[in-house]
Amino acid sequence: MKAHKRNIYLDILPLSKAYTIIEELPIQTLSSYLLPTHESVGHVLSESIYARVSSPNYHSAAMDGIAVRAYDTYTAREDNPLSLEEGIDFIYINTGNPLPDEYDAVIMIEHVIRDGDTHVVIESPAYKWQHVRKIGEDIIATQMILPQYHTISARDIGYILTAGIFDVPVYQEARVCIIPTGDELLSVEDRILPTKGEVIESNSYVLKALLKPFTQAVTIVPRIQDTQEAITQALEKAIEDKYHCILLCAGSSAGSKDFARSAIENVGKVLFHGIKAMPGKPTMLGLAGTVPIVGVPGYPGSTSICFEKIIALLLHKITHKAIPPKERVQGYLVQDTPSKLGIEEFIKVCIGNINGTYVAIPLPKATGSTRTLSLAEGICTIPAHKEGISTNEKIDIEIYIPTSHIDNTIICIGSHDDSLDGIDAFLGVSSPYRLRTVHTGSMGGIYALKNRTTHCAGMHLLDKEHQDFTIPYLQKYLPHDSFVLYTIAMRAQCLYVQKGNPKGIHSLQDIVTKRATFINRQHGSGTRLLLDSMLAQENISPADIVGYATEEYSHLATALHVATGNADCALGIYSAGISLGLECIPLAEERYELVIPKEYATLRSIETLYDCIASTKYKTYLTTLGGYTTELTGAIREV
Amino acid sequence: MKAHKRNIYLDILPLSKAYTIIEELPIQTLSSYLLPTHESVGHVLSESIYARVSSPNYHSAAMDGIAVRAYDTYTAREDNPLSLEEGIDFIYINTGNPLPDEYDAVIMIEHVIRDGDTHVVIESPAYKWQHVRKIGEDIIATQMILPQYHTISARDIGYILTAGIFDVPVYQEARVCIIPTGDELLSVEDRILPTKGEVIESNSYVLKALLKPFTQAVTIVPRIQDTQEAITQALEKAIEDKYHCILLCAGSSAGSKDFARSAIENVGKVLFHGIKAMPGKPTMLGLAGTVPIVGVPGYPGSTSICFEKIIALLLHKITHKAIPPKERVQGYLVQDTPSKLGIEEFIKVCIGNINGTYVAIPLPKATGSTRTLSLAEGICTIPAHKEGISTNEKIDIEIYIPTSHIDNTIICIGSHDDSLDGIDAFLGVSSPYRLRTVHTGSMGGIYALKNRTTHCAGMHLLDKEHQDFTIPYLQKYLPHDSFVLYTIAMRAQCLYVQKGNPKGIHSLQDIVTKRATFINRQHGSGTRLLLDSMLAQENISPADIVGYATEEYSHLATALHVATGNADCALGIYSAGISLGLECIPLAEERYELVIPKEYATLRSIETLYDCIASTKYKTYLTTLGGYTTELTGAIREV
Repeated sequence: MKAHKRNIYLDILPLSKAYTIIEELPIQTLSSYLLPTHESVGHVLSESIYARVSSPNYHSAAMDGIAVRAYDTYTAREDNPLSLEEGIDFIYINTGNPLPDEYDAVIMIEHVIRDGDTHVVIESPAYKWQHVRKIGEDIIATQMILPQYHTISARDIGYILTAGIFDVPVYQEARVCIIPTGDELLSVEDRILPTKGEVIESNSYVLKALLKPFTQAVTIVPRIQDTQEAITQALEKAIEDKYHCILLCAGSSAGSKDFARSAIENVGKVLFHGIKAMPGKPTMLGLAGTVPIVGVPGYPGSTSICFEKIIALLLHKITHKAIPPKERVQGYLVQDTPSKLGIEEFIKVCIGNINGTYVAIPLPKATGSTRTLSLAEGICTIPAHKEGISTNEKIDIEIYIPTSHIDNTIICIGSHDDSLDGIDAFLGVSSPYRLRTVHTGSMGGIYALKNRTTHCAGMHLLDKEHQDFTIPYLQKYLPHDSFVLYTIAMRAQCLYVQKGNPKGIHSLQDIVTKRATFINRQHGSGTRLLLDSMLAQENISPADIVGYATEEYSHLATALHVATGNADCALGIYSAGISLGLECIPLAEERYELVIPKEYATLRSIETLYDCIASTKYKTYLTTLGGYTTELTGAIREV
Repeated sequence: MKAHKRNIYLDILPLSKAYTIIEELPIQTLSSYLLPTHESVGHVLSESIYARVSSPNYHSAAMDGIAVRAYDTYTAREDNPLSLEEGIDFIYINTGNPLPDEYDAVIMIEHVIRDGDTHVVIESPAYKWQHVRKIGEDIIATQMILPQYHTISARDIGYILTAGIFDVPVYQEARVCIIPTGDELLSVEDRILPTKGEVIESNSYVLKALLKPFTQAVTIVPRIQDTQEAITQALEKAIEDKYHCILLCAGSSAGSKDFARSAIENVGKVLFHGIKAMPGKPTMLGLAGTVPIVGVPGYPGSTSICFEKIIALLLHKITHKAIPPKERVQGYLVQDTPSKLGIEEFIKVCIGNINGTYVAIPLPKATGSTRTLSLAEGICTIPAHKEGISTNEKIDIEIYIPTSHIDNTIICIGSHDDSLDGIDAFLGVSSPYRLRTVHTGSMGGIYALKNRTTHCAGMHLLDKEHQDFTIPYLQKYLPHDSFVLYTIAMRAQCLYVQKGNPKGIHSLQDIVTKRATFINRQHGSGTRLLLDSMLAQENISPADIVGYATEEYSHLATALHVATGNADCALGIYSAGISLGLECIPLAEERYELVIPKEYATLRSIETLYDCIASTKYKTYLTTLGGYTTELTGAIREV
């Protein structure tokens, strides 16, 4: 049955071989045309250009002042001032004015003393050609201004126009056709929220935006159905329409509905199918005549790598425009990161500058995630011959954002709380600083503080014995270090139940007696510690709670399980439950704090962070979120 | 008389104080509107946005394969394969498809063995939720997607759309009005080449292009005459038209026609006039109600610094868009560079990576030059409290181009020849490398080779005694170093005379006998050495040559003096003379070579450079230029 006939990858290519194939593609040259110079920024010269006129094209004053004959002024001294008469010995002249033939130097107006209406006095001599811009000082007619293949910059515009060149020969924009395929796709134009089995098509718009540095002439055709015939027809149409490059989105993998390969074979040939890269493996390259066709994998993470590693190179070859540069910094990963041997792996990371060292925090590998793509500030490459990278290996980090942004990032690894989003938003309004939070739970925060891989850590670790939060843990695990703790708020920990509380759950005991399904937070999280402590207090065995072993990594994630009926209840903070329309039954209140190594507390960034937390605006914001009491907000403790 | 009433600078401000004034400007907030998400790249969010839908909003297959119940598969082993029946034990499923409620795991198609039409065999078990993307794994409905003031990137588009947000609230584009003033200005629209006293207006277009990262809503009004009334009226009109920012081009200095200050005072107040920066000193800031008005100095070099230091900051404040990042590298200046105490000085430089060290080559300080602006690859800042920077001081270099470009730059300091432009053009076509030439004359090349501040040096130093070029000089001045010399060509050195040779000059002797005016090349240039050697041979005293003491720094520059009638003759290469329509009388032939320290000759970049020189295409190019014989082109000598 055809529906089950699946692709087998052709030889999976190392990236270096894919690059060679692209390098040698027999593609067509873009035609060229004349464009007004003042509209040409970002375009590529199709011929070298030469000056039509010199600049200046006359000797001109380089300063505001008076034009004189240098020879006349040789005797002027402070103790022997020289009087000059207007119209005879000098004339007033402004910057840029032609120097009359009879003069050969300019004296700055600041060095000229007025003496009545017609005379001035000077106290020092001028030398020949002083403050004069001579003919051709900037540009000499006929000289080469800029070479072929040069991409015109903003500052070039002044140079080209000054050389008297009003039109420049440039290459036309490369025309790219994006063909989204897939029965499950909803068009953005229709503005319909997806139901089960549907996905909003966004890859084509991401690609169009990524293509912007190369070309603006990008057409996205309406979504094509998952049949070999429909896709073949769409390719034929695009080839007929003389696009310079075709991006066929999804269907390049090994699913039963992956028709990209056979469709490309219907109109041309497949040059490679599959690259030794992760994400991005199902990338395909075909050629129909002189038109390259890229089979772009559908997962957002794969689309992105396919763009960076294949499409960008292809567009550079077609347009001669520079591949947007990616800077690199050297640093360390904050956790050992394994990788598959024989495949080049790209790890998306957030990046911070901790005390002069760049640290990269790996984001979840999920290639289906649009969120991690948006969060990613750079990528680390693990070469094919390695099985991973350990935390003590110095690595190159390719960065998406300027180092100045990274240097202004406050890294916060630890327990998750919605209040942190608010701090980031407030920081963004009033300062250059940003807060990047990584959710590892409170114990993960302690681990990060210990390894000096974070500026601060969100925590709410209850110590039953001392009836205190967090400080006893710091004393136990990091006894030799000093910390400052900023209290964000006292926050309610609640039982999430569905609207109307259908199972009638009002306590932990109810979960057991009513055989309700629970969804837990991960080991090491403060919420988990609180739960275990409360269960112990009430003499409830975890084994009696259905779902105790199922873990999620954030309040919103457990709340969602309850909201979708996947579970009956969970323990979490008020704001996350309420935002998903759940009922929240308060069980406890806990102190949520940011823990900062003492030596960082005096950093300008951390001081600004504290000002945000202590502001009235921020307290108001927390009150709006709900589930917080703010009497202690901004309180400072030390340990 | 009013025409002579000039401005006096108000207190000249240090830049830091100017920044504070901009920081505190009481400007209006941009209004906001809804924009379709897929068109929103580069725009700034005017509110934080929240997810309307989870993603995935159903459990879905993360791989192509079969959906199974994990529990059913626990016994599968290589030595105990398990047979599954389609429709009962499994169904085929593609990446992204919803997982039917009765299944809870996916096995990759690569691990499935077909067994007839209805059955498959597996040889290892699946674990629960294997290769399943769970509800909300990427995005959970209601969570904050991105905060206010965030600038939307290409990769954000997928994230925002996947969260079900089809429109985003963004700030409107800031509307900027550029007002060019000056009687000497020719409009680009008129396409007229300038005659004496005229200048093609290009600053406004450079500014518009530089503003692009902040806003595209830039209006350039027609050129305004240099009268206080006309400028005041133009400002009033712009304020009436509710622009968010006005850039008043030129007239902010101390010339008699500099009306910017009085015009701004007619519509509002001047906040500062003059900054302690060079170039850029005549920068002015005014405010009319809530509309900032920048008085932009007219020299291109000053305009550029005014943009970077003042206008960019202002636009960042108005739009919340990030100031386009400038990376920094650390390196050294290739020559001691003096600076005025009490003023912050910005030195435009070209940059190369010589053997792992970044070197910055100062460009001429001429602020009137559009060429140096186009050439500039970065700037070095000399702080106000310093009188200059010496070559052994490590400095920060702010770079305009990516380090990857700099790392591909071949630096060539030494004698100037048009043939080098051709090499750069050919390199650009076939490789990532670029040739950056700095004109210091042949002896300057020796100096640069000695200090290891160049990859190669263009030279043509005649040694009469040994009847050879360049090598005797290398042996004399750099006896301990080894070099490779690539011959570019034998080139003719000619006497430039005006068309028709009005003075009838055919030899050096003629210059003396006919009392013709000469224009010389600078001391240390190969052409100067050749002249002196020929004069000695012919027993002509330099004192007998009128204009011997007047020096220029390139063949084109001396040729231009002859072309404009400033001088009657000069000695220079054929191509430069011919390009300006001069007659060229050959007097000698010389070997023009590139000298490369031996250790650099094996660099990939230098090998590519050599391939260019040795190519047939390049020889053809030289022949087209004229004045070269190419028999020796590509010959290699060593010393």
